[in-house]
Amino acid sequence: MIRIVYLLVRPEHMSPEKFAEECRVHYDMSHDVPALYKYEVRLVDREPKDTHVPYLGVGPFDAVAECWFESEEKYQEYLKSSVRKQWFEHGKSFIGKLKPIITRDVH
Amino acid sequence: MIRIVYLLVRPEHMSPEKFAEECRVHYDMSHDVPALYKYEVRLVDREPKDTHVPYLGVGPFDAVAECWFESEEKYQEYLKSSVRKQWFEHGKSFIGKLKPIITRDVH
Repeated sequence: MIRIVYLLVRPEHMSPEKFAEECRVHYDMSHDVPALYKYEVRLVDREPKDTHVPYLGVGPFDAVAECWFESEEKYQEYLKSSVRKQWFEHGKSFIGKLKPIITRDVH
Repeated sequence: MIRIVYLLVRPEHMSPEKFAEECRVHYDMSHDVPALYKYEVRLVDREPKDTHVPYLGVGPFDAVAECWFESEEKYQEYLKSSVRKQWFEHGKSFIGKLKPIITRDVH
């Protein structure tokens, strides 16, 4: 499974409420995107700094998202899809800044 | 469900191989931690910068982890557990820096 985590920051002049609303729309739209096995987007509630190891001072973030793909072939199919392109156009309307992180299993 | 995402950076002088090995150990240990519904830790494979919206310049990160708890009560039980405390001690041995992000559903 290919899994890509995204850190999202809302545009400077967008309210948290509007951002949350657009995240919901983006989630609903994800169900129509071909070859996307699963999509999640979650709002950031709190960013505690009282860690048991040294604190990593990055952020603040407004949402964390993740895309799942069953294979490289499916991922390529997703990239080529016009529905996916429309979905990205919606992304441009509410994502201020984006950090993608392609992950892999530990096992 | 309470879900906490963590961004991890390895200690300056630890090799990626040693860090990956300790992530595997940490994952295996998680199965014995009471009231922890689910734990995942995934290694960072790549951090692409060619985003369709402005790039968020944070990182690099070495792993992304997540903890799931069924309820606030379960989370408190987890915090009190001595097995959890041992698990955190192991965390101190291989996590250089840590960024916790408490998330909530968009719906």
